[in-house]
Amino acid sequence: MAGYIRSVLECVPNFSEGRREAVISRLVSAASGPGVRVLDVSSDPDHNRTVLTLAGEEEALIGGLLGLYEAALASIDLRTHQGVHPRLGAVDVTPFVPLGATPMATAVHAAKMLGVEVARRFELPVFLYEDAAVRGERRSLAAIRRGGFEGLAGKLADVAWAPDFGPSRPHPSGGATVIGARFFLIACNAILDTADVEVARAVARAVRESAGGLPAVRALGFYLASRGQAQVSMNLVDFRRTSLALALDRVREEAAAHGARVVASEIVGLLPRQAALDVVRETLLLPALDPSRLLEERLRATSAQV
Amino acid sequence: MAGYIRSVLECVPNFSEGRREAVISRLVSAASGPGVRVLDVSSDPDHNRTVLTLAGEEEALIGGLLGLYEAALASIDLRTHQGVHPRLGAVDVTPFVPLGATPMATAVHAAKMLGVEVARRFELPVFLYEDAAVRGERRSLAAIRRGGFEGLAGKLADVAWAPDFGPSRPHPSGGATVIGARFFLIACNAILDTADVEVARAVARAVRESAGGLPAVRALGFYLASRGQAQVSMNLVDFRRTSLALALDRVREEAAAHGARVVASEIVGLLPRQAALDVVRETLLLPALDPSRLLEERLRATSAQV
Repeated sequence: MAGYIRSVLECVPNFSEGRREAVISRLVSAASGPGVRVLDVSSDPDHNRTVLTLAGEEEALIGGLLGLYEAALASIDLRTHQGVHPRLGAVDVTPFVPLGATPMATAVHAAKMLGVEVARRFELPVFLYEDAAVRGERRSLAAIRRGGFEGLAGKLADVAWAPDFGPSRPHPSGGATVIGARFFLIACNAILDTADVEVARAVARAVRESAGGLPAVRALGFYLASRGQAQVSMNLVDFRRTSLALALDRVREEAAAHGARVVASEIVGLLPRQAALDVVRETLLLPALDPSRLLEERLRATSAQV
Repeated sequence: MAGYIRSVLECVPNFSEGRREAVISRLVSAASGPGVRVLDVSSDPDHNRTVLTLAGEEEALIGGLLGLYEAALASIDLRTHQGVHPRLGAVDVTPFVPLGATPMATAVHAAKMLGVEVARRFELPVFLYEDAAVRGERRSLAAIRRGGFEGLAGKLADVAWAPDFGPSRPHPSGGATVIGARFFLIACNAILDTADVEVARAVARAVRESAGGLPAVRALGFYLASRGQAQVSMNLVDFRRTSLALALDRVREEAAAHGARVVASEIVGLLPRQAALDVVRETLLLPALDPSRLLEERLRATSAQV
């Protein structure tokens, strides 16, 4: 399939700037380069954060990412950064995701190579997470990020939180960075018809796995000043275990239990096609639905026949 | 885009055999040929009907379709045919659908060319419908088909129902055929948890446009002997006016009002990708969702960049 060769990776760096357009476009340019495809740029002013979706092979991606780290460290100062989303660094988190037949080991390799180089060039503490984690308790991004930039110096002073690469002190303006390898993650935000962030937090607690909610779901509640509304921000870390349709349904139910309603949702970044088809299948009660049932896919698949 | 050139048509012949596998595969082979892509074959034993989805340019498609009509007339006898779906002929209805940038006029032209040739070669009465209709009252397939094969001789004897091409008497075993040009049609069946066909009929009446229901929705209620269940069989003739999600929702509501539940649904034939994305958009309350938000599409679209 087009773009699916054994060494292609997706990479989804999240950097801590979602407001200054000139900075965002400078950072996107810095990440671009030969062999790097920019698939998507999603910025959020309330989160003050941008999710960049790149694709390419390891070497090209690492080249682009080093450019991104350099530009981000020159443009973003966490000491003055404001935003509702938890963050530890200027380039906060950089996951590699294997595409198609690419094995997870390729993503893990890329994460470690990038980590070594980022630590060396920029004297930045690097934590490895999820499938790239060297220590079990570091699989969890939430655990690594707990305390945020503001608590980072204290955390790094604890030997249990010595970074995987780089110094045991924060970069003064850039904090630290978390680099890893994982399966597709779907970031989905539900906007509520209330400004009460406590409702969003209660809903998030009810749906997230760590509090006994839905498998493979992480969730936080935020207040969006730009809209005057509260938001339930979810990460579905395995849409095969909990689908988008189910997660949203539970958010709706929990919101209703608090007298609130979901008025809109948004997908941050790109959606794997099968995750979209799963929503269709579940909503319509179809026994199955795979891409081969789509007219356009069938036309493509059969175009060699003519 | 792959397969989308200005003269490509989809063609969806429905023939009156959904049980005898050997006959079905003979008919599919007969329709195949140089330049004809067989995109899908969906057979239903209760309807005793097969929906074949083909794609190609006019000349190639007409070549394949003439093969299909010939084989169908040799294998199917409407005098002994049983099935719950309304039908008028061995090849009951053959719509052409413009794909991509192909204009509707190309589909209308193909319908008329096929109609002339089918009438001449097989002495089969041909009615033109929808965008290919020459007379306003023949736009409606349901109006043309009313009375079925059993009422066909009487209908053709009425000058108001003289066929557009061919003789004013039924083909003895093959009846008549309806050929036309139209927009994409989505055939979606909802299976109820009741064997009571009257419930399915009441639901169908409530949702179909002709009885004041949903725009661009046709619906009938059937009993499926093979499953012992009643079915609401819908055609969405313009999913931009009434989406799959809305239609199914209404079927659920109406069924509930009759104490029944939708236990499954099925899509007959192929689904246009945008119709699938519309279900996702509506279910998740996304402001918009187009194919460019899918990871695989973005990978394809950017593959030239590398």
